[in-house]
Amino acid sequence: MSATSPAPHDAIEVITAKRDGGALSDSQIDWVVDAYTRGEVADEQMSALAMAVLLNGMDRGEVARWTSAMIASGERMDFSSLSRPTADKHSTGGVGDKITLPLAPLVAACGVAVPQLSGRGLGHTGGTLDKLESIPGWRATLTNDEMMRQLEEVGAVICAAGDGLAPADRKLYALRDVTGTVEAIPLIASSIMSKKIAEGTGSLVLDVKVGSGAFMKDEASARELAATMVALGDDAGLPTVAFLTAMSTPLGLTAGNALEVAESVEVLAGGGPADVVDLTLTLAREMLVGAGRDDVDPADRLADGSAMDTWRTMVAAQGGDPDAALPTARETHVVPAPATGTLTRLDALAVGTAAWRLGAGRARKEDPVQAGAGVVWHARPGDEVTEGQPLLTLHTDTPERFERALAALEGGYDVTTDQAPGGAAPSVVLDCVT
Amino acid sequence: MSATSPAPHDAIEVITAKRDGGALSDSQIDWVVDAYTRGEVADEQMSALAMAVLLNGMDRGEVARWTSAMIASGERMDFSSLSRPTADKHSTGGVGDKITLPLAPLVAACGVAVPQLSGRGLGHTGGTLDKLESIPGWRATLTNDEMMRQLEEVGAVICAAGDGLAPADRKLYALRDVTGTVEAIPLIASSIMSKKIAEGTGSLVLDVKVGSGAFMKDEASARELAATMVALGDDAGLPTVAFLTAMSTPLGLTAGNALEVAESVEVLAGGGPADVVDLTLTLAREMLVGAGRDDVDPADRLADGSAMDTWRTMVAAQGGDPDAALPTARETHVVPAPATGTLTRLDALAVGTAAWRLGAGRARKEDPVQAGAGVVWHARPGDEVTEGQPLLTLHTDTPERFERALAALEGGYDVTTDQAPGGAAPSVVLDCVT
Repeated sequence: MSATSPAPHDAIEVITAKRDGGALSDSQIDWVVDAYTRGEVADEQMSALAMAVLLNGMDRGEVARWTSAMIASGERMDFSSLSRPTADKHSTGGVGDKITLPLAPLVAACGVAVPQLSGRGLGHTGGTLDKLESIPGWRATLTNDEMMRQLEEVGAVICAAGDGLAPADRKLYALRDVTGTVEAIPLIASSIMSKKIAEGTGSLVLDVKVGSGAFMKDEASARELAATMVALGDDAGLPTVAFLTAMSTPLGLTAGNALEVAESVEVLAGGGPADVVDLTLTLAREMLVGAGRDDVDPADRLADGSAMDTWRTMVAAQGGDPDAALPTARETHVVPAPATGTLTRLDALAVGTAAWRLGAGRARKEDPVQAGAGVVWHARPGDEVTEGQPLLTLHTDTPERFERALAALEGGYDVTTDQAPGGAAPSVVLDCVT
Repeated sequence: MSATSPAPHDAIEVITAKRDGGALSDSQIDWVVDAYTRGEVADEQMSALAMAVLLNGMDRGEVARWTSAMIASGERMDFSSLSRPTADKHSTGGVGDKITLPLAPLVAACGVAVPQLSGRGLGHTGGTLDKLESIPGWRATLTNDEMMRQLEEVGAVICAAGDGLAPADRKLYALRDVTGTVEAIPLIASSIMSKKIAEGTGSLVLDVKVGSGAFMKDEASARELAATMVALGDDAGLPTVAFLTAMSTPLGLTAGNALEVAESVEVLAGGGPADVVDLTLTLAREMLVGAGRDDVDPADRLADGSAMDTWRTMVAAQGGDPDAALPTARETHVVPAPATGTLTRLDALAVGTAAWRLGAGRARKEDPVQAGAGVVWHARPGDEVTEGQPLLTLHTDTPERFERALAALEGGYDVTTDQAPGGAAPSVVLDCVT
């Protein structure tokens, strides 16, 4: 007999319960998440459980409890001492998705604090921190105190999530990444929502991408993920709204770190591609609703320059020089339009993979990224193009990468000679899940 | 660029292919089994794949290739230089299943060599090696040369499987044991058959147990496992026959190491419980068919004492003293019949668990076992019992174990007063799969 009380569960019991199609009890979930975080449940046991969850699912109660258990594995932040309400936004990731960059200072300029804890990119979608790190001097890491001060004084922070939030999620995410279990909707939803709930934002707007360049390739899966996350927010008392947005075509005209910062600054200056401006304003308006500040129109804050002022202050507060020239790649390669006609398709996955292979993204999390690398496209679907004129420009410091980037782009766009250009551009926002 | 050629596959590709319900290619299977054996595919990746196999299955071609890949991970033995044909038997494990002990010398006495590579027990079913090790002096480990010599000279060997046979299986089995993925029929079938094919026996008879005390609780699963193994044998050119046999009632009258050796010696002496004798003869006859020696009737070899002679020679060849007294437990506890009437049920799992808890089995593979521990039952279903007379006797060296053994037996038997004793005992053999 040992002096400590025996564990209430064991790993095989929990794994086989889910394997055989049952619902896990609250006690089983609390135990397995805690025991995994402490190393008592081994990686090979948790990966078998993750596969069983992926294939057999979890009901709403299980996902909520799993999320709570991940939150309980770490610290919780609290923004209630701030003088203004808070709102946060999370995107499931897409190609050319630089929306966080103009959005955070824009919403802050409307009087709502935006605590944007972000990550780095892995694979074909870029990471917000990677993009901002192309600004000379800018640093991603802040202490909690620095973050609170910047939220109060500037209103917007985009920084790296600290190690203290949901450590169970960090460990589980790394495991899922190497075991073919990333695509489990209950685990995706609880991973995202555990961090947002632990972070303590007052309201949350989700941008769930759907299409070739997104994590969710079909609308049914994206809708299920959105509904699961909205339910988790509701159950935790965090007002949450999710937009389903199209990600078969990349956003804007650029994919790459410094390239996307430059495009974001154009938006803040009142210009920029229409789809980026529209999505930024749609998300900003919903964040203002969530924070109870929908008396303000964010379009006015773009027009009057106050969003740009907040951007400059935000960048400078984290050591960045908003006036410094952004890095550019040493080499470029132009892909000409293959015919004169209408660009009818530009595939997000093809463009994202090309940018990734040019050095904008990383294959392993310890890899460096190139600040100047990426892809610029000179037309969007619906635009007229002329044979031999530039369609895409590839940027990299390492020209031996052009070949594999070009291979990724093969079959990734269509130019049609028998279709007139123009027509209304399809809306990026497909639906809103509340 | 590295000088070595890149791996043809990666773990995530193979895991997701099976996860999404596809069939793995030959090349994927060859690669993942080899890479796992070499440690390039990690435990947490293989356990996710094992769970996907458990839930999504494998077709006949996949199981055959998986089995071949496990065989290819190690050495193969070859008995073709022996002067007589070979036949082997494998049981999926049951309570009181001591059949290998009388069977191997009996078949050898009929002129067929029996290379019986066995394992130790884990959980509620006993291990053949654990049983034989209760004979003073007997050793389980032989070199390949010693095994060949004994097969030629004695005709029967029961020994530990060497480390060289299917090392991939050894590693995978240990992983499945802790990750809730033992019950995958393709993985059970390939685990058993890879070792038997690598061992090089000329023919094989399988005893697939079904019922409360077996691994397969229902007949449909047992039948699927049997059919999968027979198909694997056929595909590998190994003539294989499988019997489905009942394991809701324990075999014979004893469960425990030395207790089962004593019962086996009774059978070899021409006595012993009818069910043990019948099953031994059924399996022996099929092994003789497989080896082309069905001109011999094994019942004659029991009757004329030649099977007992072979047993004594076989035990002595491995250092055992066939005349030594077998160990007995230091303490016994009698469970009396609760009423006068007919014993209508004696549950194999209850008896097996009680024997295990008394010290006959082990919970972890490094645990020792007690040679004398176990359970003796004094009646079989259909027999008349008298209130207060001994129904079961529990044996152990450590009397503090009685309480948990008695708890396991609770509800494990029924005595009915309104049913006459006798009637034909149900056949142990349910079906034969060829």
